[in-house]
Amino acid sequence: MVIVTASTFQVPIEVCATLAFALSGLIAGARKKLDAFGVFVVTGVAAFGGGTLRDVLLDRRPFFWVDHANWLWLMLMLCLFAMIFMRNRHIQLTERAILVPDALGLGLYAALGTQIALNLQMPVIICALMGVMTAVFGGVLRDIFCNEIPKAFNDYQPYAVIAFSGSLLVVALNAVHVPQWLCIFVPAGLIFIFRITAIYLGWRLPGWKIEAE
Amino acid sequence: MVIVTASTFQVPIEVCATLAFALSGLIAGARKKLDAFGVFVVTGVAAFGGGTLRDVLLDRRPFFWVDHANWLWLMLMLCLFAMIFMRNRHIQLTERAILVPDALGLGLYAALGTQIALNLQMPVIICALMGVMTAVFGGVLRDIFCNEIPKAFNDYQPYAVIAFSGSLLVVALNAVHVPQWLCIFVPAGLIFIFRITAIYLGWRLPGWKIEAE
Amino acid sequence: MVIVTASTFQVPIEVCATLAFALSGLIAGARKKLDAFGVFVVTGVAAFGGGTLRDVLLDRRPFFWVDHANWLWLMLMLCLFAMIFMRNRHIQLTERAILVPDALGLGLYAALGTQIALNLQMPVIICALMGVMTAVFGGVLRDIFCNEIPKAFNDYQPYAVIAFSGSLLVVALNAVHVPQWLCIFVPAGLIFIFRITAIYLGWRLPGWKIEAE
Repeated sequence: MVIVTASTFQVPIEVCATLAFALSGLIAGARKKLDAFGVFVVTGVAAFGGGTLRDVLLDRRPFFWVDHANWLWLMLMLCLFAMIFMRNRHIQLTERAILVPDALGLGLYAALGTQIALNLQMPVIICALMGVMTAVFGGVLRDIFCNEIPKAFNDYQPYAVIAFSGSLLVVALNAVHVPQWLCIFVPAGLIFIFRITAIYLGWRLPGWKIEAE
Repeated sequence: MVIVTASTFQVPIEVCATLAFALSGLIAGARKKLDAFGVFVVTGVAAFGGGTLRDVLLDRRPFFWVDHANWLWLMLMLCLFAMIFMRNRHIQLTERAILVPDALGLGLYAALGTQIALNLQMPVIICALMGVMTAVFGGVLRDIFCNEIPKAFNDYQPYAVIAFSGSLLVVALNAVHVPQWLCIFVPAGLIFIFRITAIYLGWRLPGWKIEAE
Repeated sequence: MVIVTASTFQVPIEVCATLAFALSGLIAGARKKLDAFGVFVVTGVAAFGGGTLRDVLLDRRPFFWVDHANWLWLMLMLCLFAMIFMRNRHIQLTERAILVPDALGLGLYAALGTQIALNLQMPVIICALMGVMTAVFGGVLRDIFCNEIPKAFNDYQPYAVIAFSGSLLVVALNAVHVPQWLCIFVPAGLIFIFRITAIYLGWRLPGWKIEAE
């Protein structure tokens, strides 16, 4: 983590990623017409839920949002601002605009989460799952709080699958002793590229062969 | 915590609060016609969910309900009793009757949760969030278990918002070195008064400006 | 735990149980037509969710699935295999076929969970609840992730209630200093027998006296 934190690139990317995940929560809250408290919770859960669940499971403290508590004030402001000024067309604009930072966040969080678990000597599959969890579970919890089946579970887009492949790559690069910053940024970059490609080419996961009942 | 626990007022108020939250779970379970196990889980989650989530996040043990395990027997009896004797008009009566102890619980739990986080040297916003979480998340989990959007997220009543303001007051009073029992009971009392006022005057949170899609 | 782990019977039974719970998640995912990621998460949560929640609440580490990480690879294969080959009639066959290992799992997990909490000197009701949680909460989380009211909450079958009674028996047997392997296997066996009997005789829990609103 030390090397990564020292990186000049990491902070701006992490800001983008957290903001993108927060915006996805904000839009979900707006769609459901939640009140101020609901919007704040769903926004916060989307932004920090994945990392928090990972840290609870790995028994790590303090949480990211305890260490960077000022971001919570920022998020509070963002939610209030959105409730006052957001209109339908902003939602549509925001949705398209966050695809890029969301893909960035997917890559960075998956790689970071995997590396954190690796540093704790976890088995390979656990490391990869922790990467995926960090990147994807904020959105899963967001949808559960909004009383919907998590989009990541049934939209058949290769989102978590790409994150999982990238996480395995992090493990592989560590195994051959590549410098740690490369172990993070190469898979994060590849996840980003594949995610963006998947969106623009409309890649879909294969479906079930069962018929509707 | 020691001073608060020593207080003669705290125990009866806490009994009221836990009972009020438990009753809200019981009513939700009855509305959904859950079976004995479902009612017990939803009742227990409504009563203890908020404090438990706070303690998991703050890594505190033992939980309140492990220290006071006898309450769980009481709750088990309450659920069985309710399933045998409760009728529709009881639900209506109970709903109105619990508004006062629920408001008491909101105030006391928000203030207590905030103070617990403060004693652990958490940042201001984390303390306030822990207060709100203690007071409100039992109800949120109750609604998620019943497969509904949490009422606290979309009823536009100033419930969590009042708890949040009161929690910030706890932090402020601690900052100016007011005796700890006052730091708890003054905000708890104000939250109670504002919540009751909000109900009787029908205060509403401002809504979104977006139109339905 | 040592004596139990040493048992020759425990491993095959636990394999059956975990597999049965995993299959129940797989079927739920197939019914909801989840994609590969959703199916994997719901399968994993059904298999390991109860024990993981118990361990988070009791602050025990490492989790079962961290210690036995290879099972996660197996589960991944199982999900992929199911998505390619499963048809409607397989679902129907599987549902009937898993009733027996599911009942085995219910008994074994309830007894094991209770014993684990007892070894940590928890109060009686907490031990019994931990037993029930271990056995039942995988299914509860599975249903919440699928956006449904947990089946264990409203199907009026004596499922959790049987597990609870068996868990209390574990506590009672420990209190009279029965050898630990008997404390586990006698209640586990009884839970199994009562659960199977309940299915074939169609036992139902008593319902509410309230009318629909």
